[in-house]
Amino acid sequence: MPYDYEKDGAAIYKQSFATIRAEADLARFDPEEEPIAVRMIHAAGLVGLERDIRFSPGFARAARAALAAGAPVFCDARMVSEGVTRPRLPADNAVICTLQDPAVPELARYMNNTRSAAALELWRPRLAGALVAIGNAPTALFHLLNMLEDPNCPRPAAIIGCPVGFVGAMESKAALWQAQPVPCCIVEGRLGGSAITVAAINAIASRAE
Amino acid sequence: MPYDYEKDGAAIYKQSFATIRAEADLARFDPEEEPIAVRMIHAAGLVGLERDIRFSPGFARAARAALAAGAPVFCDARMVSEGVTRPRLPADNAVICTLQDPAVPELARYMNNTRSAAALELWRPRLAGALVAIGNAPTALFHLLNMLEDPNCPRPAAIIGCPVGFVGAMESKAALWQAQPVPCCIVEGRLGGSAITVAAINAIASRAE
Repeated sequence: MPYDYEKDGAAIYKQSFATIRAEADLARFDPEEEPIAVRMIHAAGLVGLERDIRFSPGFARAARAALAAGAPVFCDARMVSEGVTRPRLPADNAVICTLQDPAVPELARYMNNTRSAAALELWRPRLAGALVAIGNAPTALFHLLNMLEDPNCPRPAAIIGCPVGFVGAMESKAALWQAQPVPCCIVEGRLGGSAITVAAINAIASRAE
Repeated sequence: MPYDYEKDGAAIYKQSFATIRAEADLARFDPEEEPIAVRMIHAAGLVGLERDIRFSPGFARAARAALAAGAPVFCDARMVSEGVTRPRLPADNAVICTLQDPAVPELARYMNNTRSAAALELWRPRLAGALVAIGNAPTALFHLLNMLEDPNCPRPAAIIGCPVGFVGAMESKAALWQAQPVPCCIVEGRLGGSAITVAAINAIASRAE
């Protein structure tokens, strides 16, 4: 076997997080936020991402308390829901993505919106107190904000708003950050995506590194 | 509804790809490679990624021909396999991730390696002519290279080698690029990950944008 490399998963994590803490500027994060930011940088492979990460006051505590209380995690994409490390969840929490629900294509046509946005309508019955994770579609985050404009819409406990890309990502995250209907976390600008979002969920779920 | 935004999925893609083609330096990619690079940039939300993308000669043709011939896609993580847009696949190709196979934990202990690496041992029966996509674990890519050192190991048609992170990612991709046991695509350095890898698969699967 000619290629020699670190094969111990725990050692790989430890060395990775040590590298991030040596290279990234994490001083503005409090002890609740810092491990979340570190794991987001880890998933992105990108020191410097910390400059774009924003936590609203109380976000980390609200999100952790929701999971500890058994709240579900609602995700806009299967790449997000599939990435959550189930054994890290504190209460065997449900991790739910409704994008493939058979009702969604027709609902999207009716709403004249994307399937990613339409899928959120199916969250309403369990949305109260939930952790919401938008890691792919700007249209999902915009639609969530519009749902929450209705005072009768159930309130999630916290929102991770990290859609990625070139159309609407920056704008939808800026809108979330300005409105702050509940405690939230964003990555400003174009960066974001499922891996960064999953990392935030996994860090909220457990302090184990 | 106070937030107004683009709700047409096709228009969002079109505008996104136009932005990327206006901002990124894609001149060194040939017409087979360019749409793959564009979609990788799109998934990352990062113009500039193109500087780190490398295609070996014939990679794009080999990978497309494999899928057209019905080859399976082997993925190192569920976030990769779940992200592949099934209707884009030209031959209803199987998309396979063996990481959750019940045999893997014991195999990993026996091999003294990660589960991500051990899972690749289960690929051997269908590896000949397959498209391999490593989008998460450096240990998986290193182990693949070691498997292919054995002349009796079946050869995939092409390898997408895009693990991400701070320990082994850069090194494993450099090793793949130097060895080139079959045509391959890498993202040099720390960047990579499931979203970029899925984007490459989806672009290889179909030229539709």
